[in-house]
Amino acid sequence: MTADHQKFMAAAIALSFEAMRTGRGGPYGAVVVKAGEIIGRGMNEVTSINDPTAHAELTAIRQACEHLNQWNLAGCELYTSCEPCPMCMGAIYWARLDRIYYGNTKEVAGQFGFNSQYFYDELAKPRDQRQLSMHPLMSTEAQAAFEEWAQQADRQSY
Amino acid sequence: MTADHQKFMAAAIALSFEAMRTGRGGPYGAVVVKAGEIIGRGMNEVTSINDPTAHAELTAIRQACEHLNQWNLAGCELYTSCEPCPMCMGAIYWARLDRIYYGNTKEVAGQFGFNSQYFYDELAKPRDQRQLSMHPLMSTEAQAAFEEWAQQADRQSY
Repeated sequence: MTADHQKFMAAAIALSFEAMRTGRGGPYGAVVVKAGEIIGRGMNEVTSINDPTAHAELTAIRQACEHLNQWNLAGCELYTSCEPCPMCMGAIYWARLDRIYYGNTKEVAGQFGFNSQYFYDELAKPRDQRQLSMHPLMSTEAQAAFEEWAQQADRQSY
Repeated sequence: MTADHQKFMAAAIALSFEAMRTGRGGPYGAVVVKAGEIIGRGMNEVTSINDPTAHAELTAIRQACEHLNQWNLAGCELYTSCEPCPMCMGAIYWARLDRIYYGNTKEVAGQFGFNSQYFYDELAKPRDQRQLSMHPLMSTEAQAAFEEWAQQADRQSY
């Protein structure tokens, strides 16, 4: 562990305490770092701003993208006080972050009642075996949008 | 398929065309419905607003929560033009939506270059076997926040 690793993880953990002590949300914090500088900060604010997507990692990613004015965070790293849930992991992959550092494991989080393992288990199942009810509908009409997309010469893939 | 099913899925698909044709982003649209009324709309806007989390489903969920002024969407349903990626699935679980209807499957999306299956495969692996590099750090300090949380009598669990 280098001094930088320690500094940035300490910043993420400090945000986790701040979220809890200020009543913003659960004890979770995260920072996005680029070239030795924090460019995005987030803490859990789900219950205070009524946004179920306001997890520390998602908020830190959005703030870093706003800072850089780009959706791609290649070259950046995320420090988070806890191993991310599938929603945040998805955002981390979409943002193309280089790597992540985490404090608590999801197993430790589970001991305190934060059960992201349930989400991992659900997503690993075939869609018709999940507890969430999922129904296909109007596939032909929906596919027409993809077909038009494939014909666009200037489409911006990512 | 009832007339309501058709109406709401058609609305989601219309948003997928709008996202593409207006240059907002990829061909994805979604709506959140409560008691026969659309209370949240979203389309893919990743490349136009530089936010990797601006998927149709996530945006529709955030808008519905803002409309209801609560983070919990129990009693609501999501209609989306395509089977969600793990990020959006995570948000759907966190928001406690009752059920979802989807147009394209992720397999059809994959034929058009939209490969959410890769994300599902990655998340199903043990964390040390993923392509994304993940490193544990300062677990003792991170866990202290959970321990303080467990002592709070008025903590708001969800």
